[in-house]
Amino acid sequence: MATRPDDGERVLATLRRHIEGRRTVVAAVDERVDRLAGLLSDFVLDGGKRMRPRFALAGWAASRPDAGPAPEEVVTACAALELIQACALVHDDIVDASDTRRGRPTVHRAIESAHRRDGWDGDAARYGVSQAILVGDLALSWADEMFVTSGVDPAALSRALGPWHAMKTEVLSGQMLDILAEASGATDEQTPARVNRFKTAAYTVERPLHIGAELAGATAETIAALRGFGVAVGQAFQLRDDLLGVFGDPEITGKPSGDDLREGKRTLLLARAMTLAPEEDGRFLAGVLGTEPDGPTLERARAVLVDSGAVASVETEIEELTARALDAIASDAISTHGRDVLRDLAEAATRRRA
Amino acid sequence: MATRPDDGERVLATLRRHIEGRRTVVAAVDERVDRLAGLLSDFVLDGGKRMRPRFALAGWAASRPDAGPAPEEVVTACAALELIQACALVHDDIVDASDTRRGRPTVHRAIESAHRRDGWDGDAARYGVSQAILVGDLALSWADEMFVTSGVDPAALSRALGPWHAMKTEVLSGQMLDILAEASGATDEQTPARVNRFKTAAYTVERPLHIGAELAGATAETIAALRGFGVAVGQAFQLRDDLLGVFGDPEITGKPSGDDLREGKRTLLLARAMTLAPEEDGRFLAGVLGTEPDGPTLERARAVLVDSGAVASVETEIEELTARALDAIASDAISTHGRDVLRDLAEAATRRRA
Repeated sequence: MATRPDDGERVLATLRRHIEGRRTVVAAVDERVDRLAGLLSDFVLDGGKRMRPRFALAGWAASRPDAGPAPEEVVTACAALELIQACALVHDDIVDASDTRRGRPTVHRAIESAHRRDGWDGDAARYGVSQAILVGDLALSWADEMFVTSGVDPAALSRALGPWHAMKTEVLSGQMLDILAEASGATDEQTPARVNRFKTAAYTVERPLHIGAELAGATAETIAALRGFGVAVGQAFQLRDDLLGVFGDPEITGKPSGDDLREGKRTLLLARAMTLAPEEDGRFLAGVLGTEPDGPTLERARAVLVDSGAVASVETEIEELTARALDAIASDAISTHGRDVLRDLAEAATRRRA
Repeated sequence: MATRPDDGERVLATLRRHIEGRRTVVAAVDERVDRLAGLLSDFVLDGGKRMRPRFALAGWAASRPDAGPAPEEVVTACAALELIQACALVHDDIVDASDTRRGRPTVHRAIESAHRRDGWDGDAARYGVSQAILVGDLALSWADEMFVTSGVDPAALSRALGPWHAMKTEVLSGQMLDILAEASGATDEQTPARVNRFKTAAYTVERPLHIGAELAGATAETIAALRGFGVAVGQAFQLRDDLLGVFGDPEITGKPSGDDLREGKRTLLLARAMTLAPEEDGRFLAGVLGTEPDGPTLERARAVLVDSGAVASVETEIEELTARALDAIASDAISTHGRDVLRDLAEAATRRRA
């Protein structure tokens, strides 16, 4: 998912610099705590697709007539999004009781293992969760610090803080709704659509583009075009995620096969299948949610999703959203080089296999 | 704990305004999520001693020659500390598995109860913890938003962001060390002393004063005096807390009697008793930690703390720290009216019963 070829490296370098600086503060408190901060550092620096910084940089580029590289302070501000994402993932993994992430132990599980290895007192699992809550809080704190001390000029920062703050409230609200939907057994399409809109579309695409555009001093017209593109691509991205969550190859996604069914996730794909499938199939699907299905059960659940027409319907919706997104940026308000970058990002976000 | 008589009301009013504003963003996502945000609102607005905003306002006043009231934007920036505290308490209550806070159910327990009441799917306790993690994240996000959008002038904000960011990393590191100390069974005095220094002294007193001073454009000399005062008062405050955690009246503290022993907290009071007490008493005390002691066991544990001389030693240390604190502000670098306020705050923090 390329913006400029070296953007990924620049994002990584600025993240490394910021995290190393913050760790000197932690190490001054205690070396043992710095080892916990090291887990956050590894988590941020060793993996991830850097989607949000890339979208933010694309928003910046799309708002500039010239096609030069983004200045260092803009890369830094955009890279800060990666630390919000670290908080979101570390806390999500606690909420979902996930054991692995990107093919490695989740942060709470890694801390739990260290507790066991050292033969410490008390419940190792509880200890892992407790420290991981705080590791996530550290990531969220460092995100804000990185953003506001990025060095972008005060006027640009002040503009960009609007979407930055809105995004944080939106993604947390969307995540709370997601958990609530699962617990309350919501089967309507509106609830997952809202989760999709705020937890994914706003957070992953729309607001990063908006932040990049505000950093670049974009016009209202450019911002509106980018946000329109972002909402559509973000929704399509989540629908692709819904499909991968059931049909994805564990070797490529790094997550167990059929993970969303096991977790009982209330996806739009699922809601649509419940609406479209014959009653018996719908009941079967509902019964699988939140269980540990064996191979044949998982296969039958997948067959219900396909045979009901839900998969085809979601694929069509992805196509439509992608078309709508490209349409939104087919205007002079978006720079030519910016449009190329956005098109590549839309492609990568909606056709990916992981 | 008075600074100016109406400071508490002004802090409350600006918190109410900010939270109500943020809740419109949440309500636009989903009304059900806004009900969860309402729990945060109640938590912040209905209780707490507002210690950190008061120290910050005292830092501001102590750095100003004139004795007028703080402008609204300064009150707003200082009040934002209360939202960091809300995150810290909501997350701490999860970590400590506390059922009550300020005599009411903790946030995770309140959410757990609502889940049970509504007969939802899955584990109610896990649901309560999951949503409360996110409620805490919301508080932390809103704290930063309130601080940077307070309206203080950009130069003052830029100065104050230094201690603001340092404070967040320090308190999280201190809290991580606290949990680590408990799990690893640390019995040295150095570990609780560091927890005390960063989790309490820096976070509750030193950095709030520092933030207030930077907002006021204080000289380096004034800042050094305030931080010296803050570290000493903050450490004395925590030692008082250690004593209240074992000897406090549940009617006044709102926490169960002997709560620190039950939780197995590695306080400096405890470490000192382990050093000073006869070996048999030390073993007895260690055996009580993290258990549910009955009345006579609790009484004997208290007797060990007193008879070992640990309580008297900690009381002496509180006196010495308070004297050192007052000494630090006995200079022309601190305004006369500011010094009066600081003296009152030091008194309240170190002689309190709750």
